[in-house]
Amino acid sequence: MTTVTPWEVEGKVDYNKLMKDFGTNEIPSAIYKKLSKAHPLLRRGVYFSHRDFDKWLTAAESGKKVSILTGRGPSAKMHIGHLVPFMVAKSLQEIYDCEVYIPISDDEKFYVKEELTYEKALEYSKDNILDIIALGFKPGKTFIFEDFVYTEIYKYAARIAKHMTYSTAKAAFGLKPENNIGWSFYPAMQAAHILFPQFQKGKHLTLVPIGIDQDPFIRLTRDVAVHRDFNFEKPCAVHAKFVPSLTGDAKMSSSGENVIFLSDTEKEVKNKINKYAFSGGQATVEEHRKKGGDTSVDVSYKYLEMFFEEDDNELKRIQDSYKSGDLLSGELKKILIDKINNFLKEHQEKKEKAKKNFEKYLL
Amino acid sequence: MTTVTPWEVEGKVDYNKLMKDFGTNEIPSAIYKKLSKAHPLLRRGVYFSHRDFDKWLTAAESGKKVSILTGRGPSAKMHIGHLVPFMVAKSLQEIYDCEVYIPISDDEKFYVKEELTYEKALEYSKDNILDIIALGFKPGKTFIFEDFVYTEIYKYAARIAKHMTYSTAKAAFGLKPENNIGWSFYPAMQAAHILFPQFQKGKHLTLVPIGIDQDPFIRLTRDVAVHRDFNFEKPCAVHAKFVPSLTGDAKMSSSGENVIFLSDTEKEVKNKINKYAFSGGQATVEEHRKKGGDTSVDVSYKYLEMFFEEDDNELKRIQDSYKSGDLLSGELKKILIDKINNFLKEHQEKKEKAKKNFEKYLL
Repeated sequence: MTTVTPWEVEGKVDYNKLMKDFGTNEIPSAIYKKLSKAHPLLRRGVYFSHRDFDKWLTAAESGKKVSILTGRGPSAKMHIGHLVPFMVAKSLQEIYDCEVYIPISDDEKFYVKEELTYEKALEYSKDNILDIIALGFKPGKTFIFEDFVYTEIYKYAARIAKHMTYSTAKAAFGLKPENNIGWSFYPAMQAAHILFPQFQKGKHLTLVPIGIDQDPFIRLTRDVAVHRDFNFEKPCAVHAKFVPSLTGDAKMSSSGENVIFLSDTEKEVKNKINKYAFSGGQATVEEHRKKGGDTSVDVSYKYLEMFFEEDDNELKRIQDSYKSGDLLSGELKKILIDKINNFLKEHQEKKEKAKKNFEKYLL
Repeated sequence: MTTVTPWEVEGKVDYNKLMKDFGTNEIPSAIYKKLSKAHPLLRRGVYFSHRDFDKWLTAAESGKKVSILTGRGPSAKMHIGHLVPFMVAKSLQEIYDCEVYIPISDDEKFYVKEELTYEKALEYSKDNILDIIALGFKPGKTFIFEDFVYTEIYKYAARIAKHMTYSTAKAAFGLKPENNIGWSFYPAMQAAHILFPQFQKGKHLTLVPIGIDQDPFIRLTRDVAVHRDFNFEKPCAVHAKFVPSLTGDAKMSSSGENVIFLSDTEKEVKNKINKYAFSGGQATVEEHRKKGGDTSVDVSYKYLEMFFEEDDNELKRIQDSYKSGDLLSGELKKILIDKINNFLKEHQEKKEKAKKNFEKYLL
């Protein structure tokens, strides 16, 4: 097992430096106070940085039109980590009753992944859309649109493309001359996604939950938004830290065995967590009883904190019990396994039902 | 008046060198023999070079599915020169009863023309489409599609874009880093236009009437067509020489006064031809009666030859009469003025009627 924990990697990533480099702000306690009923991902600090989130919240609280946008580049199958921005979007939709827009960038994946066929890209989209619908977004207030199906998006991308030079796109996306021209066009498509709620419903504040590493695209889009051809509001953003894989790598990856897929069986979940989840416990039961476990590096605890234990008191009880040595690593893992399996059982049922509700959400 | 005649410019353009550089073939007499009933533009040599036109003709003659594709980048108003490929397409459609596809690249113009707004691009498209419909293409066999309206074209462009690197597009289209990314994507869109008949109706031969200077895009598309993802036929092409402006410049331009617009009044046509049409006549009537006129440089005669006098015997009569000095320059101009005004009167009426048939032609 690797000794690189996500929190060591956090140190290497240096989130403070990223905020400084990108010119974003740390989410202040005044904002966190407003988020007491939001999803753990928001209120427990996975989302740590922002652009104009305060403006968005003020508008939302005063009943003004606001929207949320978060997209997905479809892959063979989604894992828990992919849910992060959607859980946040859903939570805020429940609190503020706002519209959620979900672009599915099958074109991006198609351009970037050499071996991905057009047909496969469409297939992945369909599967991923079902996973997203299964999360329980409000029908009539949630709009999912797939670039290769809702091709009207090209009209909006074109209007943005006119104001984005190849040099600019190259700098923001690290384009190379040997990359295909779909790839070099995609920055306009992505900006079109982010500005789509305003193209559709007029000028208003849109919040984009996004990984901190993706902020350069937000900055690019904010520049375009205020061009006189559009006169839109600059999109707002909340930035997440990386969500660790089971082994504690900085970011989950669909290629690895050490992530929980939404299609995993109960047995797979149990085996993966028991086998891979990086533990903060001691080497022996005796030692653990004496010294206690370390929740600051324990992935099972982190997953409960970030995703699966919404009750603050219960989380505190688990933490105290683990630290004191009462709760063993295997027992902690068992708590997570049960939580995940309950979630996935319900999710997989909802996904099956979503096949009938497909049309309700699609543009 | 400039002394640069189109035929001097022809000498400078060096069509033989272009054919050699591009690797195209001169249209042989065997092909011209088959075109005795085609539009003068085809049978009198304005179209002079080709790629696989023989294959296309053989397929068409044997009743196999073939199609024709010719597009338009919409502008404020169309002039006579813009009709060249459409007249050819219409003529071949009449002879071979084949489908004609007409992409309207409002996106290209929008990307390339800094000052062109999105709204204006749509407006120009609508106007230009009416002009094209007015030419009398067969409804049910003619499909006009506008990139910003028939956005499904993006799906096809994307599939081509994947196989076109920025380097390749840059070389073929002379892209610069400061050009916008819509512009750099457009080569894929153009190839999608050319392959659209095959995307829609399966593998078959499509003929593209095009200016010889545009051949590099045909070559690019022929390379993509045979990619294993598509396995299409390589598109065929017939290449035109430049059609001179009234003053004899190598190419007509919408910005000049010396072109005949399809919206021109009878009076405007008369004034423009009398004022600008480069004459092969002599300086004085006496001299003209004695020496005769030179049809090889006379723009009025060339227009009759290329567009407006379909009857070979009548054209011969005019030529002989002009050369002998019987027909004066003013009289030759009068013949052209009447021909153009008859054409435009009918065209403008048909364009008005086309407003009701719009939907019959649009995808």
